[in-house]
Amino acid sequence: MKLNRQWILRQRPDDDIGSGDLEFVQTPIPQISVGQMLIRNLYLSLDPTNRLWMSDRDQYLPPVKLGHVMRGSTIGIVEQSLSEKFSPGDIVKLPDGGWQDYAVVRDHMAEAVVEDPTVPLTAHLSVLGMTGLTAYGCLLDIGRPQAGETVVISAAAGAVGSIAGQIAKRQGCHVVGIAGGPQKCRWLTEDLGFDAAIDYKSQDVPTQLDALCPNGIDVAFENVGGSIMDAIFSRLALHGRMAVCGLISGYNDSGPLAGPTDFGRILMKRLTVKGFIVIDYLDRSDAAFANLRQWITGGALIWKDHIIDGLENAPDALNLLFNGKNDGKLMVRIASE
Amino acid sequence: MKLNRQWILRQRPDDDIGSGDLEFVQTPIPQISVGQMLIRNLYLSLDPTNRLWMSDRDQYLPPVKLGHVMRGSTIGIVEQSLSEKFSPGDIVKLPDGGWQDYAVVRDHMAEAVVEDPTVPLTAHLSVLGMTGLTAYGCLLDIGRPQAGETVVISAAAGAVGSIAGQIAKRQGCHVVGIAGGPQKCRWLTEDLGFDAAIDYKSQDVPTQLDALCPNGIDVAFENVGGSIMDAIFSRLALHGRMAVCGLISGYNDSGPLAGPTDFGRILMKRLTVKGFIVIDYLDRSDAAFANLRQWITGGALIWKDHIIDGLENAPDALNLLFNGKNDGKLMVRIASE
Repeated sequence: MKLNRQWILRQRPDDDIGSGDLEFVQTPIPQISVGQMLIRNLYLSLDPTNRLWMSDRDQYLPPVKLGHVMRGSTIGIVEQSLSEKFSPGDIVKLPDGGWQDYAVVRDHMAEAVVEDPTVPLTAHLSVLGMTGLTAYGCLLDIGRPQAGETVVISAAAGAVGSIAGQIAKRQGCHVVGIAGGPQKCRWLTEDLGFDAAIDYKSQDVPTQLDALCPNGIDVAFENVGGSIMDAIFSRLALHGRMAVCGLISGYNDSGPLAGPTDFGRILMKRLTVKGFIVIDYLDRSDAAFANLRQWITGGALIWKDHIIDGLENAPDALNLLFNGKNDGKLMVRIASE
Repeated sequence: MKLNRQWILRQRPDDDIGSGDLEFVQTPIPQISVGQMLIRNLYLSLDPTNRLWMSDRDQYLPPVKLGHVMRGSTIGIVEQSLSEKFSPGDIVKLPDGGWQDYAVVRDHMAEAVVEDPTVPLTAHLSVLGMTGLTAYGCLLDIGRPQAGETVVISAAAGAVGSIAGQIAKRQGCHVVGIAGGPQKCRWLTEDLGFDAAIDYKSQDVPTQLDALCPNGIDVAFENVGGSIMDAIFSRLALHGRMAVCGLISGYNDSGPLAGPTDFGRILMKRLTVKGFIVIDYLDRSDAAFANLRQWITGGALIWKDHIIDGLENAPDALNLLFNGKNDGKLMVRIASE
């Protein structure tokens, strides 16, 4: 009998995910009923927000319950269908396919993937998935970058940051990225067209920001939080916008996610600080994806998928995001296409 | 010879304004040249922001320089005019008439006050001045309160807060004010129509907010900062807005104006936090003043002016704002109308 391998959340991690936090189990593949489908997962998206879901921090979705399969979005293939909307062999995206081989879902919880020979399937979890939509919506809707403005992006070599920076360049902005290590920084400036990159591992971020943003920062695309956010925040210009897309530096802690030291700057410089979660932007995804697809097809938008083989490696893989060792949009290949 | 009494900023205050911080001097009244007017100040507006101007904190205007006349907006009467725009006897508003009996200004730095027998002249420094415009613009432009939403106003019995709360009631909101003392709280609920008031001097603000805002807070109109802001912020609802109008609790310190503890809530609840300074709203003042004037004429908007007699009392009067002892919009009567 074929079994379903699943990662079950057993306890809430303390810092990086450790050995007792998730358990790898095998269970029978459930039967489906009318309106449901059995999906064989192919790719599992790994995102910083997964670490939030493992915690019991007050957040934008309910935390994953202990004893439940870990939540995660996937791309999969329909194996069995008792739905009129999908047939076996169809490729679908699941917002919660889970950290498992097989998912049973109702048909309204699946979205058809229109296959396109010019883009790899994995792109539907990255640049043409929530990653791309997050970069697009958060930058354009909250950051509202205008030509000539200075945009600073933290975690700029990350899956979201790298796309946001390229969109800001399209808008005619002066774009500075912050990333860890010379290789990532070179990628930003040489391949992605960023105007400058700051290596936070070897350079003093405040000093570099002063040098690279002499008129202050109009738009901050914030993925990190902590001292890097603080350095950016305190250089926001009059009427500057900080689009808070993520605060990853704090996700491994259990305490509150701290804010900028000089909060009064919000008043003095009339800043706008606003949080973004992609679920609020889904109703505008058609236009966004149409643009993103056009840009990648034309070669005008570059992205990288970092694919780890094997569902068994998902927990260790997720930790890569928190020590900056991923190289592009991180995902797990659960099974071959 | 008539002399000009002036308050000169001698040193930057430490906490409340002390005796050596400002010096009361008498100087000759200057001659005017073409395009200028000599204004005899009648009323001087006192606002929390004046205390900021005395500090060298990074702020929205340059700090007042040591050795200069203290900045302040006034209403005055034209005594001499070498401008074609104004004649002796005209009543004008000056954004910087200063803490002094007489101001010499160019005509473009004065605004004609259209006298109206149904409203006192002092209203042009309060409900029909920057105070009313601040309440109106900050609430409607940033807070964007919708009917049925919960609005919380700190320093609600203050000049700005009391007007903002009444406008929120006009919008059909559930309005909770925070003020110091039973008398102010009664004024809010009995005279101004607030749904509830919290006396921060005798009640536990977090407990009261939980009781009065069971579904969280949609709009925070923030005048205070510190622990009161923190209690409000951590109860902001999904897509809540915090309009930062002032952070008075920190103005007497020299350190940074601290933010909320749980900054991550901006992301999790997709909050908008935005600062407001009235100078950004001046281009929309005509519509705002037309509405405010209509509301006060109809008796639908209540306000209070707290008038202290004598320019010599200006520094002590300003301190009233920082210990909550003012009762309405604070101003100094420099000379009789």
